[in-house]
Amino acid sequence: MKKIIGILGGMGPAATVDAMEKIIKHTPATCDQEHIPVIAVSFPEIPDRTTNILSDGESPLNKMLAALRILESAGAQCIIMPCNTAHYWYNELKAATKINFLNMIDITCNKIVNERINHVAILATTATVKSGLYQSRLEKENIKFVISDDIQQRCVMESILDYKGGDAGKAYFLLKGVISQLQSFGVEKFVMGCTEIPLILSRDGDVDRYIDATEELIKNAVEWCYIDEGCF
Amino acid sequence: MKKIIGILGGMGPAATVDAMEKIIKHTPATCDQEHIPVIAVSFPEIPDRTTNILSDGESPLNKMLAALRILESAGAQCIIMPCNTAHYWYNELKAATKINFLNMIDITCNKIVNERINHVAILATTATVKSGLYQSRLEKENIKFVISDDIQQRCVMESILDYKGGDAGKAYFLLKGVISQLQSFGVEKFVMGCTEIPLILSRDGDVDRYIDATEELIKNAVEWCYIDEGCF
Repeated sequence: MKKIIGILGGMGPAATVDAMEKIIKHTPATCDQEHIPVIAVSFPEIPDRTTNILSDGESPLNKMLAALRILESAGAQCIIMPCNTAHYWYNELKAATKINFLNMIDITCNKIVNERINHVAILATTATVKSGLYQSRLEKENIKFVISDDIQQRCVMESILDYKGGDAGKAYFLLKGVISQLQSFGVEKFVMGCTEIPLILSRDGDVDRYIDATEELIKNAVEWCYIDEGCF
Repeated sequence: MKKIIGILGGMGPAATVDAMEKIIKHTPATCDQEHIPVIAVSFPEIPDRTTNILSDGESPLNKMLAALRILESAGAQCIIMPCNTAHYWYNELKAATKINFLNMIDITCNKIVNERINHVAILATTATVKSGLYQSRLEKENIKFVISDDIQQRCVMESILDYKGGDAGKAYFLLKGVISQLQSFGVEKFVMGCTEIPLILSRDGDVDRYIDATEELIKNAVEWCYIDEGCF
């Protein structure tokens, strides 16, 4: 039996599906049986992360822990959580399990460092931005970054919520407007630091402008399966 | 907590992702928390169903049962299995669990009956066709059907395997060739009786020609969540 990737998901559900699709895309399989086994616990009712961080709504931690326990019992050997904002609770979740738990923020920042990218814009939820999840690591690495101002950030957040609410068209145009403004700062790349953002921008041809945190997480998880003997 | 849909999946992995995407599409949600919780056990190493049915390869049943046990322990309240051929073992799986287990073949045939469609073509794996999974019910209902001849069926099967192997382009043209031949029999609709077929034909605009068994299964599962109080 190959090693099993466990997805602590549902934040949002489409981002979980996107992560699963990217596991398939990054696995060099020629038939079903060569693909990586995945158990996805997609619990969209996990309380909203941004609301909790910014205005003290119900904490999502207990429901995240419940999903983690299911993944443990089911035999997952590596946990991924395709939601950037949820990484606000990463240390608590990691401390609560013995299973390897990949950190998508670290992995994405590693990519920026390794590719010697000097200047990025961070596209993320207001909670991810306010809690400095990306900024603290980028500062340590002396990488310049730009974040949205308050009006731009309101548009980014509205775009994310519109996408989650089913209005993909409005989500796209809101986000593209912010991107073209931030472009004027001379950034090299835009960090898609919310798992809905690659979905919102999926109609965008110019993929080289972006660093997709979900894609980086998945490439790392698939690589973990390969490197660790017993998976392939 | 809403009711949880459990997916006995990985047959193939892309079909499981497609089923999850269709759950999202058919749920009228305006935010994450209104979506349906899903646990997907995607075990692509489940032995090939067609090989077992046609030439006595390893039986997939034990690994399917293992996936079913995980879904039971995790708290799934309704099981779906997005693989038509796997329904060859449906009765054994259903008998092994107390959880509601939807049958995608029955659901798809119900749609044909309810919409008074009189003549269909069955596009499916060679094992699904040879085991008569669709034909037995359609005969009972006096619905005319056409199945591929041996050469056409070899092309359908090759198309499915090509798609699973990553050659989506070749898969599409092989299948389209068969569809245009079968069209001459005057069929009203084509039953996409293999969960890879809606993926192979996803670039096809003419969706009205097809009955997508995955989509019918998912609509039924979502409806089950709505009807059964406690889910919404």
